[in-house]
Parts: sequence; structure tokens; C-alpha cells
Amino acid sequence: MKDIEFWFSIGSTYSYLSVARLPALERDTGVTFSWHPFSVRKLMQEMDNIPFPPSKKAKADYMWRDIERRAQKYDFPVSVPAPYPLQGFDLANKIAVLGMQEGWCVDYVCATYRRWFQEGLEAGSEPNLSDSLTEIGQDPKRVLQLVESDQVTKAYLEQTDSAREKGIFGSPTCIVDGELFWGDDRIEDAVWWLKNR
Amino acid sequence: MKDIEFWFSIGSTYSYLSVARLPALERDTGVTFSWHPFSVRKLMQEMDNIPFPPSKKAKADYMWRDIERRAQKYDFPVSVPAPYPLQGFDLANKIAVLGMQEGWCVDYVCATYRRWFQEGLEAGSEPNLSDSLTEIGQDPKRVLQLVESDQVTKAYLEQTDSAREKGIFGSPTCIVDGELFWGDDRIEDAVWWLKNR
Repeated sequence: MKDIEFWFSIGSTYSYLSVARLPALERDTGVTFSWHPFSVRKLMQEMDNIPFPPSKKAKADYMWRDIERRAQKYDFPVSVPAPYPLQGFDLANKIAVLGMQEGWCVDYVCATYRRWFQEGLEAGSEPNLSDSLTEIGQDPKRVLQLVESDQVTKAYLEQTDSAREKGIFGSPTCIVDGELFWGDDRIEDAVWWLKNR
Repeated sequence: MKDIEFWFSIGSTYSYLSVARLPALERDTGVTFSWHPFSVRKLMQEMDNIPFPPSKKAKADYMWRDIERRAQKYDFPVSVPAPYPLQGFDLANKIAVLGMQEGWCVDYVCATYRRWFQEGLEAGSEPNLSDSLTEIGQDPKRVLQLVESDQVTKAYLEQTDSAREKGIFGSPTCIVDGELFWGDDRIEDAVWWLKNR
């Protein structure tokens, strides 16, 4: 069976729910997800979309409460509101891009989101950054040198260009046969689509 | 058992999905919904939220496709994109407010959404307006006179003030014991909350 493309940015709040439940979902459904980091911030800036201005306080308050309830429903820990927005947004996602190239993207993303949403430590900043890399067996010094290279920066931009070309505008987004499914709450629709269409 | 408050604006696209499935959901779950029209447009303007500017074309395209797929999943007809935005937004919702006072709100909302999302005829404008009222046994001339009264205009504003005070920022929103559930895709969460908390 084909993979489902899972496009995400570390920095997206609702993506925590997906990151935390995808491994179990793969076991339960037999479906596999291929993970694709990109910069949702860049695409949102292109859409003049500013997350959480003061005028949208009610919406932001709701979001944290909704994430909390959904995590409880899925039965995994959450501590909200988590620090937001991330200072090290691009750094966190460039590490994910390097991880994609080297084969440890999923482990890193799960580890850094857990520290961010369970322990209140920002992804992309210390101590989350080094602790998450060390936990998954990667040397922080080596990784931080590599992510500053033109190669990783270029790959990150290319990932974001690909996302835009596919019609992606938010994180997380699943893609099956060119069909987009935006949001943690559409992952089951993507699995259904893969199995039934 | 208590009701679930169902807050909505005619003019909201995703609310079509809820309007079309609430009657069956009530039968299946034994839960009842009390319907509360308000002006989501007014609250969105207060949040500087402009739906569908040209910069968000990808998001708008996605929304119509998502609504189409969800309607197919729920197994009721849909023809998208429906005319948007509505010219007669306030008129449609003021009629719903009068219907709430007189006891025919649900019938009217279902009838006008069906013409809008299945036949491509704008809610709040002719011929949808008169045909929907006639279908549910209301005299369009009488209704149109009444909705211009200060009493209905005031009630509409009060509904919108109540929505804002409750923390509502979008349509549809369900409320159970002060917990907000925003979006058609959160209605099952609201039902679960009512039955289990």
C-alpha cells in the first residue's frame, strides 16, 4: 500500500496531536506515513496570515482548550498553553530536514514535541534542542554545524516550495493521491481515502 | 438530559454540514440541540478576520473540496462552490431570529441551506427567501415586514452580544456546560461531553 504524505512544521500547535498519535495510528491501521517538514510560517506570511493577534484572543484561548481536550481523548499527556510562538522555528525545522535526509526525522520530531508540549520547553531552543538530539543518539554539535550549511537551507526551501505547489497552506496536512486533508482532525479521512478510493 | 446549544450564522459554509445532519444526529444519539442564530460576520469583523482574500485562494479551494468530501461521507447532496459570500446575510439571520421567537427557526434554516448548497440559490435573497418561507408554511410578506422591526433587529444584536460573551468566534459552535466546540467536526465531541462529563 502507498504511504500517506504527512506535511508538518515544528511550531504548529495542532501538529502536536498528530505527531504524538501517528505511530499508534500506523500500528492500528497498517498505513504508513512519510514525514515532510516545511515552513508553514513562510506560506502563512505569503497569505498575510498572522497567527493569534490580540483581536483573536477568544480563538487562541479556544485552541489551547481544544488541544487539551483532544489530547485527553487520545489519552496522552499535554500541558497547555505551551510556549508560543517558537523563537527557533526555522532551526527546529531545518534539523527535521536534515533528519529526513539521514533517517532520524520522526524520532527527533517526536522527542522535541514531547518536551515542548509536555514539559513546556520550546522546540528549536536549548535545552530542548540538545536534549532531544542526544536522546535519539545524534550529536548536537555535529547536527548544528550541518544545519547551517547551504545544502540543508536549500533543501528546507525546496520542501516549502513543494508544499506550496501541492496547495498546502497549513500544518499538518496529509496528502493521498493529490487529495489534501488539513488538520489533525482530518487524518482519519486521509486513511479512509487511502483504503477505499 | 440538557440541550446542546447550537450557535450558527446562515452564511457560514461549514454550518451547512451541521444543519443538514443535526436532525439525524438527534435521532441517533437522543441528544437535542437548541438553535441560536447570531452574526458571525460582526464578530469576525471585530477580529479583523476577512474570509477568503485573494491571498488565501489555496485555503478557499481546499474548503470547498473538504465540504464536498464530508457531505459525501455523511451521505447527503452538495453542490460546491455555493454562491459566496451572501448578499442577504443579515436578512437571512434576522429571519432565523424571528423563527426562533415563533418556533419555526430550524425548519427555515434547513430549507434555506438546502436551496443554497444543493440548488445554488443564495440564502437571504430571492427566490430562496420566499420559497423557503412558503415551503415551511410562513407568509413571506408577513415575515419580511416583521424582520424590519426594531424588535427583531434588537434581538439579533442581543444574540450576537451573547455569542461574544460566551467566547464564540466562529460558526457553528456547540456549547455544553460552558465548554465550546467549534466546527462541524467537533459536534461529536460536544455530544460525548454532554453524555460523559
